Amino acid sequence: MDDANRYERGLAKLQEIYGERAQILIASLKDIAPDLGRYIVEFGFGDIHCRPGLNLKSREIATVAALTALGNAAPQLRAHIHAALNVGCSEQEVIEIIMQMALYAGFPAALNGIQAAREVFMERAGKK
Amino acid sequence: MDDANRYERGLAKLQEIYGERAQILIASLKDIAPDLGRYIVEFGFGDIHCRPGLNLKSREIATVAALTALGNAAPQLRAHIHAALNVGCSEQEVIEIIMQMALYAGFPAALNGIQAAREVFMERAGKK
Amino acid sequence: MDDANRYERGLAKLQEIYGERAQILIASLKDIAPDLGRYIVEFGFGDIHCRPGLNLKSREIATVAALTALGNAAPQLRAHIHAALNVGCSEQEVIEIIMQMALYAGFPAALNGIQAAREVFMERAGKK
Amino acid sequence: MDDANRYERGLAKLQEIYGERAQILIASLKDIAPDLGRYIVEFGFGDIHCRPGLNLKSREIATVAALTALGNAAPQLRAHIHAALNVGCSEQEVIEIIMQMALYAGFPAALNGIQAAREVFMERAGKK
Amino acid sequence: MDDANRYERGLAKLQEIYGERAQILIASLKDIAPDLGRYIVEFGFGDIHCRPGLNLKSREIATVAALTALGNAAPQLRAHIHAALNVGCSEQEVIEIIMQMALYAGFPAALNGIQAAREVFMERAGKK
Amino acid sequence: MDDANRYERGLAKLQEIYGERAQILIASLKDIAPDLGRYIVEFGFGDIHCRPGLNLKSREIATVAALTALGNAAPQLRAHIHAALNVGCSEQEVIEIIMQMALYAGFPAALNGIQAAREVFMERAGKK
Repeated sequence: MDDANRYERGLAKLQEIYGERAQILIASLKDIAPDLGRYIVEFGFGDIHCRPGLNLKSREIATVAALTALGNAAPQLRAHIHAALNVGCSEQEVIEIIMQMALYAGFPAALNGIQAAREVFMERAGKK
Repeated sequence: MDDANRYERGLAKLQEIYGERAQILIASLKDIAPDLGRYIVEFGFGDIHCRPGLNLKSREIATVAALTALGNAAPQLRAHIHAALNVGCSEQEVIEIIMQMALYAGFPAALNGIQAAREVFMERAGKK
Repeated sequence: MDDANRYERGLAKLQEIYGERAQILIASLKDIAPDLGRYIVEFGFGDIHCRPGLNLKSREIATVAALTALGNAAPQLRAHIHAALNVGCSEQEVIEIIMQMALYAGFPAALNGIQAAREVFMERAGKK
Repeated sequence: MDDANRYERGLAKLQEIYGERAQILIASLKDIAPDLGRYIVEFGFGDIHCRPGLNLKSREIATVAALTALGNAAPQLRAHIHAALNVGCSEQEVIEIIMQMALYAGFPAALNGIQAAREVFMERAGKK
Repeated sequence: MDDANRYERGLAKLQEIYGERAQILIASLKDIAPDLGRYIVEFGFGDIHCRPGLNLKSREIATVAALTALGNAAPQLRAHIHAALNVGCSEQEVIEIIMQMALYAGFPAALNGIQAAREVFMERAGKK
Repeated sequence: MDDANRYERGLAKLQEIYGERAQILIASLKDIAPDLGRYIVEFGFGDIHCRPGLNLKSREIATVAALTALGNAAPQLRAHIHAALNVGCSEQEVIEIIMQMALYAGFPAALNGIQAAREVFMERAGKK
């Protein structure tokens, strides 16, 4: 991949996955840590999420699972539940991923993941 | 699902995913905590992994991601890398899942995940 | 133990430990992940918490300690502080368990555990 | 060091680092776990933070980094961002420490650390 | 409690709980971080473990649970399984505590805890 | 900063910090995940560690603290203890950073960090 346009490539990928939320994330860092926003776009999305070898839906399954298991990043978990739904996961698949984390990180992690999913599902239902 | 044969159903699923390793896991608990082995079979595999709504490959993507991110269960991560390969993930997909965890749990977690993958890939290559 | 009535046995145990809160937990999952509620009842309480070999008070000491140390599941920690008090721990014992976690998980974990205890103690004092 | 006045020595160090916040921390524990407050003063500040061999600024760099990486103690992270600024870190240095944690604990930990820094910076700006 | 003899009081408590292992822990830190050994004796055992309000058996139940759940301190978990057995827990109680952690921290944490217990039980059986 | 030579800039920074170890890290990933090695060089060292606003010594203090507190990445902690010593930390400063983590992540994390430091100090002493 061409390294000259990592930012443009990353921003396009971020918007493909997050839609309008992409701009909110970047804007929220502008006043205090704009370079962190740039690294997320360039490295997170321009490098990693543009890689071939694993499709976007599988990438979001992995991320929702990891953030549910870690259990200490609720805003990012909600963002990635949105992303998972945007790239083709059904609500039921999201619930299954989170529920399975009870096996690997315990029931509290799964219960808090379900709460995040509930908030995302309600927000999206309200928009329809 | 019928609740009467959770153990049989779970054992069949465990063997479908792990092959001969299934017996090793159960045997390793027999002397000290046989009920823990039974719960893994009944609840982990008879209940959770037999659920419809998420295919086995997606379930292993979720588990490899979560165990890489948590970073404190190397033997189980290796077991689930075996499982992921058994249910249809390519080695490249496993590497991509682990590499992506650098974004969500940091580079040390990803590096230790890669080390687990290397050991699994070598063990399987040696058996061919 | 008989496997046919794991749900009934678990529900009875859940109500013995949590009182009226038991129904709230199960009801909160009904719309979105009812099977997760069922697994908590069947496996968490029908299987694990019904086991002989460790009394209920010791089980809640273990859980309050673990959730304080993990530090990423405040709602569940509060629920288990209620449970600990319900099965015979004194408020002082709860404080001692949480304070001791400063040694094993650091002062921030202990401080946040104390905050959870304060909320539970105040809620229960308000009900009297 | 003399062990007889650990509390006095610790309280002086706590006030040197935290200013008026020192009293708030101790007061907040008075009703429920006063000895935890005493241990923080005696051991945390009278013993550890009074040690020679590492200056206060370096100690706060270490603490801000650790609490950002652990990601499960937001109130304590905010308190230590205040402390870091009080003992000589610039706002830019605080941002750099937190941003660097993206490498070692992932972007969600860094993003939540930046949010803590934003709240602290705004509170201090409002006081000027 | 008298603060003048925290070290002596802590050392006596440490030896009551750990027996001959107490000296090994302190000796192992002598060359590199002797003050850390002193703090463990003074604060960990002279202050915390000497507190009334929670008996030693309950304190070790809490610690074995927490270290199993955290899953990143195998040597300390083994030491506290020894301690739990020394202060009155049965092997079966230790197994129950660890097994219960599957609910709160996942099966990998429980499995690695069982492995620690196996090593401790075998070491103690070998000494008889 | 110029984005065209992130790899060269990162490699120079990596060698400044790690010396000959830099090549070992990159070589160890060559067969299995070469792009992960490239990202560590480009993003970790070409982007983050080349940033002005925080000096290298402070950056290593932050990293040693974070990895000690997380407690699940022993090989990376050892590497960063080497790095800290390479960029100007004394052995005593490294010990102080690790010992302080007892306050924020508990004594087991600090004890395991001290063990990592002992191995690094002995390796370096053996080379003189």
